[in-house]
Amino acid sequence: METRAAVAWAAGKPLTIETVRVEGPKPGEVLVEIMATGVCHTDAYTLSGADSEGKFPAILGHEGAGIVREIGAGVTSVKVGDHVIPLYTPECRNCKSCLSQRTNLCTAIRSTQGQGVMPDGTSRFHCSPVLGEPTGAAPVRSQASGDTVFHYMGCSTFANFTVLPEIAVAKVREDAPFDKICYIGCGVTTGIGAVINTAKVWPGANVVVFGLGGIGLNVIQGARMVGADKIVGVDINPSKREMAQRFGMTDFINPREVGNDKVVQAILDITGGGADFSFDCTGNTEVMRQALECCHRGWGESIIIGVAEAGKEISTRPFQLVTGRVWKGSAFGGARGRTDVPKIVDWYMQGKIEIDSLITHTMPLEEINHAFDLMHEGKSIRSVIVY
Amino acid sequence: METRAAVAWAAGKPLTIETVRVEGPKPGEVLVEIMATGVCHTDAYTLSGADSEGKFPAILGHEGAGIVREIGAGVTSVKVGDHVIPLYTPECRNCKSCLSQRTNLCTAIRSTQGQGVMPDGTSRFHCSPVLGEPTGAAPVRSQASGDTVFHYMGCSTFANFTVLPEIAVAKVREDAPFDKICYIGCGVTTGIGAVINTAKVWPGANVVVFGLGGIGLNVIQGARMVGADKIVGVDINPSKREMAQRFGMTDFINPREVGNDKVVQAILDITGGGADFSFDCTGNTEVMRQALECCHRGWGESIIIGVAEAGKEISTRPFQLVTGRVWKGSAFGGARGRTDVPKIVDWYMQGKIEIDSLITHTMPLEEINHAFDLMHEGKSIRSVIVY
Repeated sequence: METRAAVAWAAGKPLTIETVRVEGPKPGEVLVEIMATGVCHTDAYTLSGADSEGKFPAILGHEGAGIVREIGAGVTSVKVGDHVIPLYTPECRNCKSCLSQRTNLCTAIRSTQGQGVMPDGTSRFHCSPVLGEPTGAAPVRSQASGDTVFHYMGCSTFANFTVLPEIAVAKVREDAPFDKICYIGCGVTTGIGAVINTAKVWPGANVVVFGLGGIGLNVIQGARMVGADKIVGVDINPSKREMAQRFGMTDFINPREVGNDKVVQAILDITGGGADFSFDCTGNTEVMRQALECCHRGWGESIIIGVAEAGKEISTRPFQLVTGRVWKGSAFGGARGRTDVPKIVDWYMQGKIEIDSLITHTMPLEEINHAFDLMHEGKSIRSVIVY
Repeated sequence: METRAAVAWAAGKPLTIETVRVEGPKPGEVLVEIMATGVCHTDAYTLSGADSEGKFPAILGHEGAGIVREIGAGVTSVKVGDHVIPLYTPECRNCKSCLSQRTNLCTAIRSTQGQGVMPDGTSRFHCSPVLGEPTGAAPVRSQASGDTVFHYMGCSTFANFTVLPEIAVAKVREDAPFDKICYIGCGVTTGIGAVINTAKVWPGANVVVFGLGGIGLNVIQGARMVGADKIVGVDINPSKREMAQRFGMTDFINPREVGNDKVVQAILDITGGGADFSFDCTGNTEVMRQALECCHRGWGESIIIGVAEAGKEISTRPFQLVTGRVWKGSAFGGARGRTDVPKIVDWYMQGKIEIDSLITHTMPLEEINHAFDLMHEGKSIRSVIVY
């Protein structure tokens, strides 16, 4: 069959909307009609060329929601018509990692996913490449070179139809709106999951959140949901304050106002000795250090969510750890996708968490490059593409 | 009263044996006759002058065992004749830290302890200072300057009689030999406690121990006690191998043989993917990084026990944490002294853990400088002073 898709031909180039051939699902795979997809910083990171593992040409996108339209041989966990959220972190329930019950980082299909192909080592996407620079005019196709287009994070939600392994879709309730719950495919789960799965924030805890973008706001509402006391937000942009307060932030620190070297002391003062939990949602390794060092002596835990620039390292004096602080990280919010994502969809439908106000822009696939522009300009929290 | 004591007059100088005046216990304090004391690297660290908080003159020593000889007003938890182990990490059971039930780092008397005095702000030790360099000949006393001698880590076990706050002694069984259980006052508890309290090593876990000195050996026997599978020891000194094997080490890696840059891979190979728990017992910040990075993706935890040189920092890529590794530290093995130390004494008496073979030298107080020499020359695991 064919699908409309936004193809990333090369690092740093705009996406072009193409008609891409999609092979049907092989055994253990499903064909999903993507109904909506968010555009996330990780897509932009790979598109920029900074991601050393990025492969081109590829169909990016990893934050979608859709409907199963066809299942491959042997698929038993979902059926045609099921509503699903694609999972860039799958949950096979059989690998060493899943069976450890100590991590969500399923390793069943990790190597092929990293190579941009399905578990059998091939891509389901094909499209003859454009010759020369994409111009927006009718493209000139190469007939000579290969026409494989790679998958991305095992999801490729910037295609109206995509193929995924069965273990990489979470079945969700059918009354949930695609154009909102797609955000649970990455940002919402990453933030809320870090609070409940990785940190296991307890009621009455003091929480500090560095970086009040989409992830930070989801950390804040996760902390509110589990009954945190102080929820301190830290951001150099004062315009982030109002939204964060609506999501549950109780105190705001602007490092440019208090002085960057006084941020830790300001947090110690507000929290009466330090954070029980801190979260870095900035990707800045200097901020990660502050996030650790503002933790309470004896037990405070700092969770790194942000993705740092290649080559950057975190540092601290070991004394910070010997006196009881703990340094951790979180990927996909520590969530086991097929188990936890449907619960978060329920919480949204029950009104326990808020998503609508975080989706600042909705647009058709043809405007996807505009979504990247909005993100780079800091003008969106989340843009969602609706097919 | 008076006591014999080894006094550290100044950084880098040998201790001298002195007759020191000891004031009796004030309210909430006890006078303890120290029967035996270990000589630990931390004493040497402070004596060297590298410890920026070290105060002189002082009576060092923090790894003792003895008998309560007098109690101050209001003391209820111990009585005259009780056998006790002094605690440099006290357990008041009433401060924010103790009540949190999340840390052993009681803060009740932290500030005065760090200043070398009892909680009322004064020292119980007095001795007129020696004029000029200690020579071993009859000292010349100054009558002019103050005669205060400071306490050290709240313990000062290099005095035959010392005064401690009631909350800083653990009552232990009376049939346990002082010249062995004194080691539980620091080294044994630091190693075994890091395994059971800080890491909570589970049966069947794969454990890696960097540095096979006294602490490392106690980590190893702690891991064996709780049923670890692989217990991998790493040390550049091959002569440490035999003793470590006797304590439970299953595999040995010498970085000078495999190549320092291949240590992590060697551990991944032996453990089938990485350590469930690693322990740094070296104090070397580069080793601390290896200890983190040899942990299993998804859940491996690295615990820093070693004390690093002043100013040294640990570093890693945040990706190591985001993919599930956890970086922690441990002080006094995460043990609550009055609660946990008596249990470890019981384990020793029951034969669950071994101490005797770790005490390689026993000597009178007069030979204490020799104990420091043996340690510096790497010729002892633990030297114990018997009064």
